[in-house]
Amino acid sequence: MRLLYLGDIVGRAGRDAVVGALGQARERLRLDFVVANGENAAHGFGITPKLCDELFQAGVDVITLGNHTWDQREIIPHLDAEPRLLRPANYPAGTPGKGVGIFEAPRGKKVMVVQVMGRLFMDPLDCPFAAVEKELRKVRLGPGGADAIIIDIHAEATSEKMALGHVCDGGASLVVGGHSHIPTADAQIFPGGTAYQTDAGMCGDYNSVIGMKKDAAIHKFVRKIPGERLSPADGDGTLCAVFVETDDRTGLAVRVAPLRIGPRLAESWPDC
Amino acid sequence: MRLLYLGDIVGRAGRDAVVGALGQARERLRLDFVVANGENAAHGFGITPKLCDELFQAGVDVITLGNHTWDQREIIPHLDAEPRLLRPANYPAGTPGKGVGIFEAPRGKKVMVVQVMGRLFMDPLDCPFAAVEKELRKVRLGPGGADAIIIDIHAEATSEKMALGHVCDGGASLVVGGHSHIPTADAQIFPGGTAYQTDAGMCGDYNSVIGMKKDAAIHKFVRKIPGERLSPADGDGTLCAVFVETDDRTGLAVRVAPLRIGPRLAESWPDC
Amino acid sequence: MRLLYLGDIVGRAGRDAVVGALGQARERLRLDFVVANGENAAHGFGITPKLCDELFQAGVDVITLGNHTWDQREIIPHLDAEPRLLRPANYPAGTPGKGVGIFEAPRGKKVMVVQVMGRLFMDPLDCPFAAVEKELRKVRLGPGGADAIIIDIHAEATSEKMALGHVCDGGASLVVGGHSHIPTADAQIFPGGTAYQTDAGMCGDYNSVIGMKKDAAIHKFVRKIPGERLSPADGDGTLCAVFVETDDRTGLAVRVAPLRIGPRLAESWPDC
Amino acid sequence: MRLLYLGDIVGRAGRDAVVGALGQARERLRLDFVVANGENAAHGFGITPKLCDELFQAGVDVITLGNHTWDQREIIPHLDAEPRLLRPANYPAGTPGKGVGIFEAPRGKKVMVVQVMGRLFMDPLDCPFAAVEKELRKVRLGPGGADAIIIDIHAEATSEKMALGHVCDGGASLVVGGHSHIPTADAQIFPGGTAYQTDAGMCGDYNSVIGMKKDAAIHKFVRKIPGERLSPADGDGTLCAVFVETDDRTGLAVRVAPLRIGPRLAESWPDC
Ligand SMILES: [Fe+2]
Ligand SMILES: [Fe+2]
Ligand SMILES: [Fe+2]
Ligand SMILES: [Fe+2]
Ligand SMILES: [Fe+2]
Ligand SMILES: [Fe+2]
Ligand SMILES: [Fe+2]
Ligand SMILES: [Fe+2]
Repeated sequence: MRLLYLGDIVGRAGRDAVVGALGQARERLRLDFVVANGENAAHGFGITPKLCDELFQAGVDVITLGNHTWDQREIIPHLDAEPRLLRPANYPAGTPGKGVGIFEAPRGKKVMVVQVMGRLFMDPLDCPFAAVEKELRKVRLGPGGADAIIIDIHAEATSEKMALGHVCDGGASLVVGGHSHIPTADAQIFPGGTAYQTDAGMCGDYNSVIGMKKDAAIHKFVRKIPGERLSPADGDGTLCAVFVETDDRTGLAVRVAPLRIGPRLAESWPDC
Repeated sequence: MRLLYLGDIVGRAGRDAVVGALGQARERLRLDFVVANGENAAHGFGITPKLCDELFQAGVDVITLGNHTWDQREIIPHLDAEPRLLRPANYPAGTPGKGVGIFEAPRGKKVMVVQVMGRLFMDPLDCPFAAVEKELRKVRLGPGGADAIIIDIHAEATSEKMALGHVCDGGASLVVGGHSHIPTADAQIFPGGTAYQTDAGMCGDYNSVIGMKKDAAIHKFVRKIPGERLSPADGDGTLCAVFVETDDRTGLAVRVAPLRIGPRLAESWPDC
Repeated sequence: MRLLYLGDIVGRAGRDAVVGALGQARERLRLDFVVANGENAAHGFGITPKLCDELFQAGVDVITLGNHTWDQREIIPHLDAEPRLLRPANYPAGTPGKGVGIFEAPRGKKVMVVQVMGRLFMDPLDCPFAAVEKELRKVRLGPGGADAIIIDIHAEATSEKMALGHVCDGGASLVVGGHSHIPTADAQIFPGGTAYQTDAGMCGDYNSVIGMKKDAAIHKFVRKIPGERLSPADGDGTLCAVFVETDDRTGLAVRVAPLRIGPRLAESWPDC
Repeated sequence: MRLLYLGDIVGRAGRDAVVGALGQARERLRLDFVVANGENAAHGFGITPKLCDELFQAGVDVITLGNHTWDQREIIPHLDAEPRLLRPANYPAGTPGKGVGIFEAPRGKKVMVVQVMGRLFMDPLDCPFAAVEKELRKVRLGPGGADAIIIDIHAEATSEKMALGHVCDGGASLVVGGHSHIPTADAQIFPGGTAYQTDAGMCGDYNSVIGMKKDAAIHKFVRKIPGERLSPADGDGTLCAVFVETDDRTGLAVRVAPLRIGPRLAESWPDC
């Protein structure tokens, strides 16, 4: 299968970058399945049902979220109503929504997507390692299980993402991180056959502070008193994603490569 | 000028990657000046005078450090004795060593190197923004000042690094981050002419958890009780660096590109 | 001199406790000078000029603040306009307001008040230890300097408060902490003659979670998703304060004792 | 029943304070059951089997630990072998030791002790609220269940301790905090009948920084580079504890009061 994971879509710049380029990418890369992180789609803070639809129409199959899941109140009932919308799985029991889904892909294929959130330098949720291992015990990668498994680790620390990558090695097609809003250049296939990239980066304007307008973001670091509210930078956005090709028999990765389309970062297309 | 910044060198795998490839890189990229982060050179924890010499002989001109500066006691007197060795500038007054140096490069050029440490999710040092701005007021980039200025921001959070990058835009040749041990794919030249990359990545074994052996690192996240001490992974290392070419008249960047040489990440050479 | 420090006044319950009891306490304890922390006076979040006046009229001589200084926008110009209003001194240069004041007390006495904020588990401001030491070098305790010096350390960690207490020992009349909203039972005079209490506690309703209504506060810990906004508990408040008596010749403490008046904690009056 | 909880015993000063005074306190207060926190008994870092025995012989019935549980390697097998030794219950499944015990007290009484660790500003363990609620569902306070239930919340933040106190209100005899090493003066009985004190304080030398020698502790805050290792202050120790008397029919508290015996803090004996 040919899968794409789009990093945190930030505001209008990010949405425009995705809507403008995803159709072409789907075609050129012959994609079977697309996951996108939408936690910053609504002016940088959360997502709305309307914006979910915009992304689905642009070619996204599943949307994951993160620590910004709860920013827009109207999304909360949608977390239960919309099967293609996931929040981190390691929230406490009783939290609206779900963190795991199994989805139909073309040619009868099944794709499992799991999102968890890291804890280092973040809110202390339940253990993300235990949450992922529980899902991987329930659904095996390969014949009789899922044709592809994508683990989205929304976390601050590179160490926590990479540790989770290795824990999943051999049991997932792709472990990919989000939340830092900067793409990493470390795409690789781990020894057990799982593709890994520490962070997919954001889809948004990179002439910014991780997608937000510079002045307000700098003010927070330098002045230490409240300033203007953060809002997304509105220059042209860059799409950042991770492409994976799997072996149809095993579900493991045979190729992983970044996709970057946009004005500020070096463009990168996987060979097709 | 043609400058290279090598990210955190982790243990023997990192040192071997640098020693083995830097000569060739210096030549092929016609480098004028090389800065390397050495805070993890000594089995992952700090650096020794002997390892400093090994790096200088391999073609490094200046070594910066970071939060691991103090791990090896024998380096502390060396911080004052060795002019080419820097630690973050924003330690309190009275701290051994210095965080800023102006160095001679070929053809009579002068290069200023400043290292600061971030505070978000790290120890609360003095303000890194104020520390950098103070140095940039003392020494201007361009004629009459420094021919190149490299700012090394050793920090956890992508936002803090990128905010500092913009604060320095137009006043430095390169702002480059370290400490996350994962290279970012966001090399760009900011509007004011300063080259920027959020993290240079590490020089070390990427079949690991940010350079350290997997099992002990995973144990820390999963078990929450002390386990084996972390030690560097010992597979073949990958060199990760950022290359910048500056305009000799202004000191600003005309080109920035990653350099990656090694077995696990996609190899990348700047066009030469 | 006879001095009183009132801990964080939280909402109406806290204000009523102070307004209702301070007159009696001033008289019974023959107080010369009263400092109060007002950072939570305005419905738990910051303070307004009008509430400052209410406290001054109730018998407060100086109001200190803390991390909640900036919650009410209208207080910001007042920070510069009102000499009796202090915020932590270790904000960056250029921050509105001031963190130090020297005030007239009865019988020609002079009282210096300094507030600093801790950094452990808090925002990384400038070093509170350096900030306090700078002030204590400028103004000495005793003849020719200040008749009393009160250091207010607004901090999370008991260790940081106690360390600052010892650093000031012999140079201040009282080092007292705030911010935890719970009074500590460790009032003592350090070997050098400085009185110390780790936290003065709050003036507010103790049938609460540190002054706030229980349900919303518990929700934050248990549910990990946003709930109702925190608001102050509105049962009867308890006044919590620290009383110090100094030696008029040295400014050092001869007696320190808690004052607690209210319905939920054990009442405590210094012997008078 | 008449119960006592002794706060974190720090080093020899703390042990001597407990050994020297507990016999007298047991007698004078006619204590039925004594719990002590021993996580700092071994020179400030953890505890050994030998020191456990010393405390048991001095009149302690159950020892709880905390974040320092693992400091002494030899205690780890003892965590499983010694029924009277507890560590926080909210470590991951598979962790050595246990966090809950039901113990025999005189006159056929049963006492349940549960320890959990907070997460705010601490390591992200499993949810302490969920862990406690699970135990309180298994064993009810009162006839047919336990005659007394003591919940020990080892945590940094006053808010987390107080929130847990209210969650347990009506279901436990006493919720008492530890870890801050400073006694709080907020002993109270909550509306549902549960006694509460935010922190029991330490048993140790209060002429110190939370029990440790001053210079090394101050160095950590001021210098930001490694200094001497922390070691316990060795002046005379003060015993700090919380006394609770319960109603034999309900197990709820009828009285709560601090016990403090020693040279530096105001001595306090519950009325007997
Ligand atoms: Fe995001
Ligand atoms: Fe996020
Ligand atoms: Fe490093
Ligand atoms: Fe580092
Ligand atoms: Fe407060
Ligand atoms: Fe505060
Ligand atoms: Fe402790
Ligand atoms: Fe502790």
